[in-house]
Amino acid sequence: MLSIKERTIRTKKLQTLMKEASIDAMLITSNVNLLYIFGEVFVGAAFLAQEGDVMFFVRKPQIYTDHKEIKYIRKIEQIEEFISVDDYQNVAFEIDEESYSDIERQKKIFHNASIANATSILRKARMIKTDVEVANIRSTAKKHIEVYKSIPKLYKDGMTDVELQIEIEREMRLNGSVGLFRTFGNAMEIHMGSLISGNNADAPSPYDFAMGGAGSEALPLGSNGTLLEKGNPIMIDMAGNYGTYLSDVTRTFSVDKVNEEAYRLHNLSILMHKEIMMKAKAGDSCADIYNKSIEMAKEHNALQYFMGYTQQAAFVGHGLGLQINEMPVLTGRSKDILQENMVIAYEPKFVLAPYGAIGIENTYLIHKDFTENISELEERIIDIRTGEAY
Amino acid sequence: MLSIKERTIRTKKLQTLMKEASIDAMLITSNVNLLYIFGEVFVGAAFLAQEGDVMFFVRKPQIYTDHKEIKYIRKIEQIEEFISVDDYQNVAFEIDEESYSDIERQKKIFHNASIANATSILRKARMIKTDVEVANIRSTAKKHIEVYKSIPKLYKDGMTDVELQIEIEREMRLNGSVGLFRTFGNAMEIHMGSLISGNNADAPSPYDFAMGGAGSEALPLGSNGTLLEKGNPIMIDMAGNYGTYLSDVTRTFSVDKVNEEAYRLHNLSILMHKEIMMKAKAGDSCADIYNKSIEMAKEHNALQYFMGYTQQAAFVGHGLGLQINEMPVLTGRSKDILQENMVIAYEPKFVLAPYGAIGIENTYLIHKDFTENISELEERIIDIRTGEAY
Repeated sequence: MLSIKERTIRTKKLQTLMKEASIDAMLITSNVNLLYIFGEVFVGAAFLAQEGDVMFFVRKPQIYTDHKEIKYIRKIEQIEEFISVDDYQNVAFEIDEESYSDIERQKKIFHNASIANATSILRKARMIKTDVEVANIRSTAKKHIEVYKSIPKLYKDGMTDVELQIEIEREMRLNGSVGLFRTFGNAMEIHMGSLISGNNADAPSPYDFAMGGAGSEALPLGSNGTLLEKGNPIMIDMAGNYGTYLSDVTRTFSVDKVNEEAYRLHNLSILMHKEIMMKAKAGDSCADIYNKSIEMAKEHNALQYFMGYTQQAAFVGHGLGLQINEMPVLTGRSKDILQENMVIAYEPKFVLAPYGAIGIENTYLIHKDFTENISELEERIIDIRTGEAY
Repeated sequence: MLSIKERTIRTKKLQTLMKEASIDAMLITSNVNLLYIFGEVFVGAAFLAQEGDVMFFVRKPQIYTDHKEIKYIRKIEQIEEFISVDDYQNVAFEIDEESYSDIERQKKIFHNASIANATSILRKARMIKTDVEVANIRSTAKKHIEVYKSIPKLYKDGMTDVELQIEIEREMRLNGSVGLFRTFGNAMEIHMGSLISGNNADAPSPYDFAMGGAGSEALPLGSNGTLLEKGNPIMIDMAGNYGTYLSDVTRTFSVDKVNEEAYRLHNLSILMHKEIMMKAKAGDSCADIYNKSIEMAKEHNALQYFMGYTQQAAFVGHGLGLQINEMPVLTGRSKDILQENMVIAYEPKFVLAPYGAIGIENTYLIHKDFTENISELEERIIDIRTGEAY
């Protein structure tokens, strides 16, 4: 459970946004947002009015005792027994996260109210991390990096992409990875991350991740059994889910050396991190970061490979926290401005078929006057057989 | 992609159910149901009228060519360019599976139509498997069993539940497990399955799985770092996701021998499989199976341990296929009747705190005159150190 102090910080933040949007009350029911406001997953709902404390209505598990703000219910309709539902005119529900049927059922409880979007309020609140959230992300990023350092030890000649991924997954789990990897939106399925090499790096995927990969029939994303061949880069973007919060880090490895064009594009990605993301600060526009990245890719004759070749992603980074794809999105259409305590993954990547994908991704913390890389780790391409960087 | 023959079988089945419910057309958009009707995941929609062929509207990935039934779109509203939306008076949407916002957007396209529930139609169709689906489930069950046979080789003295689970996960992945494990309903999060031992077997979880386990803050289910101790049973219920279809098998292991009461309850579970599930056939009621199981647990003075101790599940089995929790549910309230080609996991289990959980789960195929166990494998408790059954 969250400390009272931390819960109050998060509650007040939501209430400020609710006031701005003239929302009288909010009903929170998704696992990810109960994690945000309560610190644990339960089945039931959190109810937050524009003023006052949050209340929790728990159906399962019945393990909490001695908390006046926690009430046990058998069905969601019972919240009427504890709150005057008719007092609230404009009520926000998690309409982008919960099913149509669930929301219809929740709406009936507040039968006189108009409906507002709680998902956008919650995503806006979660976009700016509290100090406790930042500490959690720093801690997961640290483990993320330690696991990445051990990758050369996991490689054996003759491995396929899937086989290497499996050894990395095991190493992640032994270091505390939860396994489960939360995403926002129903078009985002993944299993612990992505590892792509060879021509498979250019295979389009249905999902809205930066990179593709054919994957399997059941999960068309990432590794597909491609042999890790001499001269090909291996892009590794495995989850940083060593707790409830996530980090996002990509590094590129190689079997022996890769070709000059691959090194050139990889170094361009590193340069983009230094020249664009590390020079950003609170107040800068997210669209600017995207536009500058496109500009730099163009200047270096690399635009056709940027963020994919056959299918290109229209963003270069994204917020992250409890889910891997949070606000803001670094895209040309974004109206968002960088703010202190935003945590952002910046991932300028290139697909160079038929060799593979190159580039890096770091997790950054936005400060008032500068941007901090919280995933510091060798950025050059590492020969996976020797551990040496080039 | 599905063969034309298989797609036609599934389409006709849905159309029969649509006629019975007076549904003129159905819009399918979820990954799991696109897998059902198309055989692959894409972003977009499948449109099915009460008569005629299904049409596919694909936003991503743009990899399909030379199929007249596949149209590319940039946004879902474009389906209006290909179908006369006003011809359909009662349109079914996936209201239990898709978000409120997505369904509101889809409803606007069919602005004159009344809204029906596509989720219940799709779940009803998927409840009875086609021969192709049965073959897929048989094939995944076979791999599931082979991996379970190797479990004693993965065990080392001094391991925790999490450490053993990680080695099983690796073995699963090396044998073709997709990793991702699809469930129905937003209250069902899991990572590749559950392994519980010791007092943790009795820890209540928020999720609607048969068994609990404290898990972690991020994922309160299953293993939690409990040492696998001498005399305790280890219940292993890891996913059978070796393809797009699932199988569901639980076996119980032990470090050395367990106490007499644990063997007694475990043998009662085996007896329930023989006396109740293996004697079921098409035409029998699902509620009867639940009631007979409760009755037998009562007769054997085991009801207080049945399906949990501190928190008890109110079902003894469930259908499975593309998701682990499909129709029918074997519960007292069920109105469903067993039918040929249903695939059902039966899982009478007992929690004996502080030692652990015991019992087995098999995947069964319902035939006209009998029930077939498609997960045949030693059912007694296996000493994980020696591989011997007791």
